[in-house]
Amino acid sequence: MNLPQLKLVSFKLCPYVQRARIVMLEKQIEHTVEYIDLDAPPPWFYDISPLEKVPVLLVDERPLFESMVICEYLDEITPGSLYPANAFERAQQRAWSEFGNDILDQHYTLVKAREQPGYKRARGTLIERLETLDEILGDGPYFAGETFMMVDAVYAPIFRYLNQLESEFQLGLYADLDRVPRWADALLARPSVQDAVPEMFTSDYRAYLLRQAGVLAKSKEKTIS
Amino acid sequence: MNLPQLKLVSFKLCPYVQRARIVMLEKQIEHTVEYIDLDAPPPWFYDISPLEKVPVLLVDERPLFESMVICEYLDEITPGSLYPANAFERAQQRAWSEFGNDILDQHYTLVKAREQPGYKRARGTLIERLETLDEILGDGPYFAGETFMMVDAVYAPIFRYLNQLESEFQLGLYADLDRVPRWADALLARPSVQDAVPEMFTSDYRAYLLRQAGVLAKSKEKTIS
Repeated sequence: MNLPQLKLVSFKLCPYVQRARIVMLEKQIEHTVEYIDLDAPPPWFYDISPLEKVPVLLVDERPLFESMVICEYLDEITPGSLYPANAFERAQQRAWSEFGNDILDQHYTLVKAREQPGYKRARGTLIERLETLDEILGDGPYFAGETFMMVDAVYAPIFRYLNQLESEFQLGLYADLDRVPRWADALLARPSVQDAVPEMFTSDYRAYLLRQAGVLAKSKEKTIS
Repeated sequence: MNLPQLKLVSFKLCPYVQRARIVMLEKQIEHTVEYIDLDAPPPWFYDISPLEKVPVLLVDERPLFESMVICEYLDEITPGSLYPANAFERAQQRAWSEFGNDILDQHYTLVKAREQPGYKRARGTLIERLETLDEILGDGPYFAGETFMMVDAVYAPIFRYLNQLESEFQLGLYADLDRVPRWADALLARPSVQDAVPEMFTSDYRAYLLRQAGVLAKSKEKTIS
């Protein structure tokens, strides 16, 4: 492949960055990664990221922002596609990927909630979202069957968060679910998914969770003491 | 064109719905529209919209949600494309469309702000976003020159809001800008853009703004009294 030089500007814990990394690993796209500190980004970051978010992909040094835009671009410039050939099925997978963004939002609301009512509401909505997913999923192992696709790349980092959240805090997110946890396991067993995060991700994410000092982190203190 | 039966489920004031309408009108795609009341949606709406948002496109009665997903689908099933042929340019237009979503978020924050600090912050961020746009725009009339593209369909409803906001409340959103207001005018003069909203849109949007009872609406009361 005669591809442009690709550098992914990233934040170590960002689930959106992982989507792009997974696409790159799935499609064996040569690239480099630069991790920055989102709490204190280097001055040049403001020039390339108008919403001050990661990931940004530098394409021969020209910036491209927004994770799904980057994923679609990477998919389009390389042979084969992580999307189905049928337009309606492709659209469905894009729609459920957007649904995944909402799950990430609920996850952040849960993790940062300072008071019980907000915490309970976020947990309730998160479980509701996962139930909706469970209803629309097929027999697996992946979203659309045997083939790993873009929507799988989108959900893999989501389940990396949720599975760890579940194992640290036993929130019962998957309590009544069947297909979602099976899909989560299939995704997290995939080499591209495992290799999409930097060393120490699990410890760093754990530290991040405990640092939030909200209802979730406090529930852990109680358990420990 | 041998297209499926298409029905757009909409809310009268929704800017996201308008994107899809504009694409349909630009590409002369036969369709029907059903306006629902988002404050009291019909029961069937919950079955077709897992995030309880509009638009939903019914494709031979099968639901498709999320505005950009719908726009891309409509673009893909019809001849020609509202996207550039070059993958990087296509990605850039998608990225700046996402930037437009953030502008809509800032708009809502401004309109709903109950206290001066939040109101001022939202106005400041909104102006900052428009300044960023002004820097990256070319000579026009549209985003990428002479041809109306998907990113234009995305921004047209945004400027419909902002121009009316400006004319009702004189917020100085375009005070130091040159290219953005010119782009806005070009978009709002486009027939597909004008025809994308139901009758009475301007009065309904005005009533919506005044109903919010925050800093913005109160500034109007002061002017009137």
